[in-house]
Amino acid sequence: MKTRAAIATRAGAPLEIAEVELDGPRAGEVLVEIKATGICHTDEFTLSGADPEGIFPAILGHEGAGVVVEVGEGVKSLKPGDHVIPLYTPECRECEYCLNPKTNLCQSIRSTQGQGLMPDGSSRFRTLDGDPIFHYMGTSTFSNFTVVPEIALARIREDAPFDKVCYIGCGVTTGIGAVINTAKAEIGCRAIVFGLGGIGLNVIQGLRLAGADQIVGVDLNPAKKAMAERFGMTHFVNPAEVEGDLVPYLVNLTRGGADYTFDATGNVKVMRTALECAHKGWGESIIIGVAPAGAEISTRPFQLVTGRSWRGTAFGGARGRTDVPKIVDWYMEGKIEIDPMITHTMPLEDINKGFDLMHAGESIRSVVLY
Amino acid sequence: MKTRAAIATRAGAPLEIAEVELDGPRAGEVLVEIKATGICHTDEFTLSGADPEGIFPAILGHEGAGVVVEVGEGVKSLKPGDHVIPLYTPECRECEYCLNPKTNLCQSIRSTQGQGLMPDGSSRFRTLDGDPIFHYMGTSTFSNFTVVPEIALARIREDAPFDKVCYIGCGVTTGIGAVINTAKAEIGCRAIVFGLGGIGLNVIQGLRLAGADQIVGVDLNPAKKAMAERFGMTHFVNPAEVEGDLVPYLVNLTRGGADYTFDATGNVKVMRTALECAHKGWGESIIIGVAPAGAEISTRPFQLVTGRSWRGTAFGGARGRTDVPKIVDWYMEGKIEIDPMITHTMPLEDINKGFDLMHAGESIRSVVLY
Repeated sequence: MKTRAAIATRAGAPLEIAEVELDGPRAGEVLVEIKATGICHTDEFTLSGADPEGIFPAILGHEGAGVVVEVGEGVKSLKPGDHVIPLYTPECRECEYCLNPKTNLCQSIRSTQGQGLMPDGSSRFRTLDGDPIFHYMGTSTFSNFTVVPEIALARIREDAPFDKVCYIGCGVTTGIGAVINTAKAEIGCRAIVFGLGGIGLNVIQGLRLAGADQIVGVDLNPAKKAMAERFGMTHFVNPAEVEGDLVPYLVNLTRGGADYTFDATGNVKVMRTALECAHKGWGESIIIGVAPAGAEISTRPFQLVTGRSWRGTAFGGARGRTDVPKIVDWYMEGKIEIDPMITHTMPLEDINKGFDLMHAGESIRSVVLY
Repeated sequence: MKTRAAIATRAGAPLEIAEVELDGPRAGEVLVEIKATGICHTDEFTLSGADPEGIFPAILGHEGAGVVVEVGEGVKSLKPGDHVIPLYTPECRECEYCLNPKTNLCQSIRSTQGQGLMPDGSSRFRTLDGDPIFHYMGTSTFSNFTVVPEIALARIREDAPFDKVCYIGCGVTTGIGAVINTAKAEIGCRAIVFGLGGIGLNVIQGLRLAGADQIVGVDLNPAKKAMAERFGMTHFVNPAEVEGDLVPYLVNLTRGGADYTFDATGNVKVMRTALECAHKGWGESIIIGVAPAGAEISTRPFQLVTGRSWRGTAFGGARGRTDVPKIVDWYMEGKIEIDPMITHTMPLEDINKGFDLMHAGESIRSVVLY
């Protein structure tokens, strides 16, 4: 079949809107009509050429929601008409990783996914001239129709609005999950969140949901304050306005250091600050942000020997098929908010404007509506 | 009273054996006759001048065992004749740290202990000329008699031999506790231990006690192999004999990386290796060794984002008054071994020979017998 898509033809170039050929789903695969997709920094990271694993031409996009159109041979958990969110971290429920309760990093299709291919080692996308186009993160939601492995689709309730819950496909789950699955933050804890972009805001609402007593937000941009407060931030700190070192300032503000700190900036210096203002004895610092290729974190080992833990999270530690439908429920029940974070919507033709808004820091999330 | 002690007069100088004046215990303090004390690398670290918090003159030693001689006002949990192990990490059971189950780092007397003083801000030791001598780690077990806060003494069974269980005052508890309290290693886990000195051997026997399936020991000195095997090591790796990078070699040996890795070297490069050969998704790396002042650990944050945790441990995460008596029981019941690790004993007069043996790598543990 033919479908309209935004193609990343090469690093650094704007996406090209074009019709492409899409093969139907093979065994274990599902054809999905994408109804809405967010534009995430990770798409930008790959498009810019900074992602050492980026390959071109590819159809990017990993934060979508849509409807099952057709299922391939052997697909049992989904049927046409089901509403779904594609998962860049699948959940096969059979591999060594899925069977270990300590991780969500299903490895069953990791190698082909990393190569921009479906699990059988081929691509379903090609140009109208027949040249292959790679998949991206197993999802390629910047195409109106896409093929996704069955194990990489979470079935969600049918009354959930696509243009909002698509954000659960990445940002919402990453931020809230970092609090709930990775940190397992307890009622009454104190926390510091570095970076008040889309991920940081979701960390903040995850902390509110978890019952944190103190939620400190740190950002150089004072314009972020109001929105972060709306999601539960109790204290705002602008490092540019702090005299002296930031670490002792934050340690003092949190009465000895935070129980949990989160880096949502991707800056390795901020990651160090986040670790060092975690509480002696038990503070945990969780890295969410993606650092530039080759960048390294560092600290004195004394920071760890005196009881701090340095950890990370991918997709918020969520097992997508199990956890994403729950987070959709939380949204529908009003336990979490998404609407104010979707600051812009646009048709696929204008997707490059969404990237421009991100660069300019004007959007929290832009969503493409098909 | 007068007592014989080994005095660290200045950084880098041999200890001087001399009589010193010792005041009796004040409120909340206990006078202890030390019967035996191990010589630990941390004593050497301070004596060498490398410890930025080291102060002189001081009476070092923190790995002792002895008998209560006299108790100060208000001491209720101990009486003369009780057998005790001094604790450089006290357990007051009242401070914010003691009341948090995530840490063992009681802070109730931290500041005075760090200044070489008893909790009231004064020293009990002085020279025969009346010049003050500092305490060390709150224990000063290189003195035949010493004064220790009540909250820094673990009461132990009276049939336990001082010359062996003194080692539980630091090395044994640090190594075994890193496995049991900090890592909480499970039956069937795979582990890698870097550095097969006194701490590393105790990590190994902790892993054996915890039921680990695979216990890999890594050391540049092949002479360490036999003793480590005696304590439960299942695989020995000499990095000098590995072709290519050590990390992929160890990841392969442990079938994807170890569930737990332990640094018992204090070398920040080894700490990085230890982290990076922990298993993707759930591997934890625990720093035990003390690094040189100013040295820093580093890695790519991707190592953490993909599920590894970087942690540390002090005194094996043990709460001394609660846990040390249990470890003494384990020794008496044959669950753990200590005797083969006490390779040398000597009278106080020869304590400098114990340091020489440590420098030469000839001892696992030298114990001074009073």
